[in-house]
Amino acid sequence: MDTKDTLLVLSGGMDSTTMLYEYKERIGACVNFSYGANHNAREAECARANCRHLGIELIEIDLAFMGKYFKSSLLEGADAIPEAEYAPDNIASTVVPFRNGIMLSVAAGLAQSRRLSRVMIANHGGDHEIYPDCRPSFIASMGEAIATGTGNEVQLEAPYTLLTKNDIARRGASLGVDYSLTYSCYKGGEKHCGRCATCIERRQALLAADLTPDC
Amino acid sequence: MDTKDTLLVLSGGMDSTTMLYEYKERIGACVNFSYGANHNAREAECARANCRHLGIELIEIDLAFMGKYFKSSLLEGADAIPEAEYAPDNIASTVVPFRNGIMLSVAAGLAQSRRLSRVMIANHGGDHEIYPDCRPSFIASMGEAIATGTGNEVQLEAPYTLLTKNDIARRGASLGVDYSLTYSCYKGGEKHCGRCATCIERRQALLAADLTPDC
Repeated sequence: MDTKDTLLVLSGGMDSTTMLYEYKERIGACVNFSYGANHNAREAECARANCRHLGIELIEIDLAFMGKYFKSSLLEGADAIPEAEYAPDNIASTVVPFRNGIMLSVAAGLAQSRRLSRVMIANHGGDHEIYPDCRPSFIASMGEAIATGTGNEVQLEAPYTLLTKNDIARRGASLGVDYSLTYSCYKGGEKHCGRCATCIERRQALLAADLTPDC
Repeated sequence: MDTKDTLLVLSGGMDSTTMLYEYKERIGACVNFSYGANHNAREAECARANCRHLGIELIEIDLAFMGKYFKSSLLEGADAIPEAEYAPDNIASTVVPFRNGIMLSVAAGLAQSRRLSRVMIANHGGDHEIYPDCRPSFIASMGEAIATGTGNEVQLEAPYTLLTKNDIARRGASLGVDYSLTYSCYKGGEKHCGRCATCIERRQALLAADLTPDC
């Protein structure tokens, strides 16, 4: 029996990389999306490095139209990124409208084309619930849309939906994930800036997992 | 009050063009997708002509990765298209996996970016229920995913879901829609082939509306 039945949405950040290592036995391929954000190129390098290490195919898809037509500070250069912890007021500008819906829809079609029966994504809870397309209610309804729209050939699984980033980092630490091969910073520079919300969250998570912070 | 609150997914075929004319007072912009299918170029010409005629903006988005990575006879050149009426056996090969899910997700993000509160699509019933992502259950769950994933800023409406193509053609005839500025053939030639399922369906619909068939 072929157990490689899963397509994983792999950004190259901490969460999806942890999921890659936790579920590597069932992953048939990964898909990475570029959508015009500052940090896409650095994330993609990490996604490539981890897939190469595990011998798993990585499909890279360019959603350049999002950078052209969509509104988000994440798509407007590093200087537009707020420097503060996740909080509704300062971080709402970094929402990329329906980003997870778009990535999951493309992944669903790609999975069905490849006869893979499962799509996985590493959205999680905690501060990230500022983003409507990370919440449990979105994942539930998107999963239903994927099931009905593929004639029940593809199912969505998002097992980190109720975990915090600290939980994920602890899980990754126990799996031996090398987080130096992941990237988080919304500014997209060579090194993590240490000041944007995602850097602050990364630092807290690495500390919670008794790992050495790199930002 | 600004009533131009809607983004319409406009392929350039009979159904979405009818919807364009029926709902033109509320349409703020249309979006047309190319995804590597034989007929995309001819459809897009029609979408442009109708939007120009009505003075409505048309946003054209290239989903070229679908032609590259997705499996469907619709993406494999004109010779791969079955020549027969819509029926599960002969037409299943023309399904483009989760195509409507992908187009609706992109449209939802684009609508939210433009502060448009509604996405409309002209999926319909009848023979098209061979396609899982045209069915009422898919539209209902995708609508729920769009509402939750945009923080209730965007709603999906698909008012033709329970109509047949004959119903739509009759409605278009009463609105005075010029169907010579629409294109249907899955082979994508200069003229309609008259033999593929969508040409056969087009001919029947035009006859049902007391219009002169062009294929």
